Amino acid sequence: MKKLIKDKNQILADMLDGLITTNPDVELISDTVVVRKDKKQSGVALVSGGGSGHEPAHAGFVARGMLDAAVCGEIFTSPTPDKILDAIKAVDTGDGVLLIIKNYAGDVMNFEMAQEMAQMEDIQVESVIIRDDVAVSDTEKRRGVAGTVWVHKYAGYLAENGFSLADIKAKVETVIPKIKSIGMALTSPMVPTTGKYSFDIDDQEMEIGIGIHGEKGLHREAVQPIDVIIERLLDALLKEVKEKDIIVMVNGMGGTPLSELNIVAKYLDAQLKDHNFDVKQWFVGDYMTSLDMQGFSITIVPYSEDLGEALVAPTASRYF
Amino acid sequence: MKKLIKDKNQILADMLDGLITTNPDVELISDTVVVRKDKKQSGVALVSGGGSGHEPAHAGFVARGMLDAAVCGEIFTSPTPDKILDAIKAVDTGDGVLLIIKNYAGDVMNFEMAQEMAQMEDIQVESVIIRDDVAVSDTEKRRGVAGTVWVHKYAGYLAENGFSLADIKAKVETVIPKIKSIGMALTSPMVPTTGKYSFDIDDQEMEIGIGIHGEKGLHREAVQPIDVIIERLLDALLKEVKEKDIIVMVNGMGGTPLSELNIVAKYLDAQLKDHNFDVKQWFVGDYMTSLDMQGFSITIVPYSEDLGEALVAPTASRYF
Repeated sequence: MKKLIKDKNQILADMLDGLITTNPDVELISDTVVVRKDKKQSGVALVSGGGSGHEPAHAGFVARGMLDAAVCGEIFTSPTPDKILDAIKAVDTGDGVLLIIKNYAGDVMNFEMAQEMAQMEDIQVESVIIRDDVAVSDTEKRRGVAGTVWVHKYAGYLAENGFSLADIKAKVETVIPKIKSIGMALTSPMVPTTGKYSFDIDDQEMEIGIGIHGEKGLHREAVQPIDVIIERLLDALLKEVKEKDIIVMVNGMGGTPLSELNIVAKYLDAQLKDHNFDVKQWFVGDYMTSLDMQGFSITIVPYSEDLGEALVAPTASRYF
Repeated sequence: MKKLIKDKNQILADMLDGLITTNPDVELISDTVVVRKDKKQSGVALVSGGGSGHEPAHAGFVARGMLDAAVCGEIFTSPTPDKILDAIKAVDTGDGVLLIIKNYAGDVMNFEMAQEMAQMEDIQVESVIIRDDVAVSDTEKRRGVAGTVWVHKYAGYLAENGFSLADIKAKVETVIPKIKSIGMALTSPMVPTTGKYSFDIDDQEMEIGIGIHGEKGLHREAVQPIDVIIERLLDALLKEVKEKDIIVMVNGMGGTPLSELNIVAKYLDAQLKDHNFDVKQWFVGDYMTSLDMQGFSITIVPYSEDLGEALVAPTASRYF
């Protein structure tokens, strides 16, 4: 295994140490919880997290205008309820905490358990669950992927603007069901904690509809030119997008160079225009990755003035 | 070749189309020159560029507070003098233009030729050459690598603050010789225009001192734990750094996940402390890449209040 690591048993600790060494705005509590040093004094606090290996998500978004805490599990492994509870207690101002959860069984179970434990200690906690991956047909089972990052930003904007916990939850929940994503991979991520590839894939193959932990997608086929790849993805994605004014993210999976993401954006824009969509805002870069996987995802949400303003509002995160 | 492309003969055009589609602040002139839409009305304009394949450098840094134009050559190929001249003419406000050139034979020749052509048309043009790669022992032959990006930012800050062309050149030239970099690679980049890897490297090997186009480094050896890799790099790098207060960049080479760059930062910080260095500012991310190469570089410059302020000053570039 060729990886820039010291010891496969201390990857999480090492990456978090590096993060807090180089980002003077955050600190670590309870070993694996990244919080803002400049703690909010009032208003709703936002907590997200999940397994690591998706950097900059989630700890890179702990910043003014986005998250107050990120609970970081081991690579591709949910954090435990006690750590999530520590995060909730650390950031609560008395005005309540919103948990932003990607829809994976372990994450949902552990975040909800922490929510109950916090409520028993009289902390107001609400939660929302992101299920944006249209590669899974059962909408209740859909995985939470790159669209989660927009929820961090939207909720962060609302919190900065003084909305109450109930209002933030209500507003965010009108947007969440409209966020739709789909991804593809050229290569498997190398999981440094095991030294193994997440899955096997042939030198000439790609997988359409893959998840951010290498979960099975819709199908495999020979690698195609990028315009054909985009057709495949939009076949599944556009069935679920009714509004014509949209916001689009081209998210790199960690090992894909920015030059290729820009090529994706060109052909994606052309095909969206053919389908009479009008892209009001673009996001192109690595937001929700899968270690060093080569591939990308497309995320679409209908444009509204409120959401559009939230997504371009200032944040101290350098990754958004 | 598994690459997210349409046609290997139109990679540059496609990536630039994608860039201008998704970044509303820039536009394309002369096919391959990226300029700010909101053109400066007065003050010194900054032009950089070179071969493509180093994204976000250089076009991603065309933004308020950094560059006014980036001249984009084909992958790993210098742009031609006529394009550089077009860039100079497009951005000159009458107050002069500074060319920021990485030290590669083709870049230096073509940028200097364009400089002469512009001067013959009575445009004030000066140039500076970056030679930060200490892997090359002859200082005149040192390659320009990731440290170039700090020069974009420093010069951009000075230009925003109304310094004259002569003053910017003089101030930047006091910093340039003090910027020192060294890189390493785990894998070769796949060059999409040829469908070939840039070099061959064994599954268990790494190369220390490699350039951003896969140029030969100092030596090859079996992959080591990250602390040992950093020792190797600092052996060469710290000989040339005298001041103890420093600014440090950990630059990803395009295919390296952010999690690993943070692990690099942790062990780098520890070793720098052992050598009595005090890191005043950190930059961790992909700034000057080599397509999808896995690896990283370290860049160090002595800290000064002036430079420190410049590097954290606002810029509209989302990549700095």
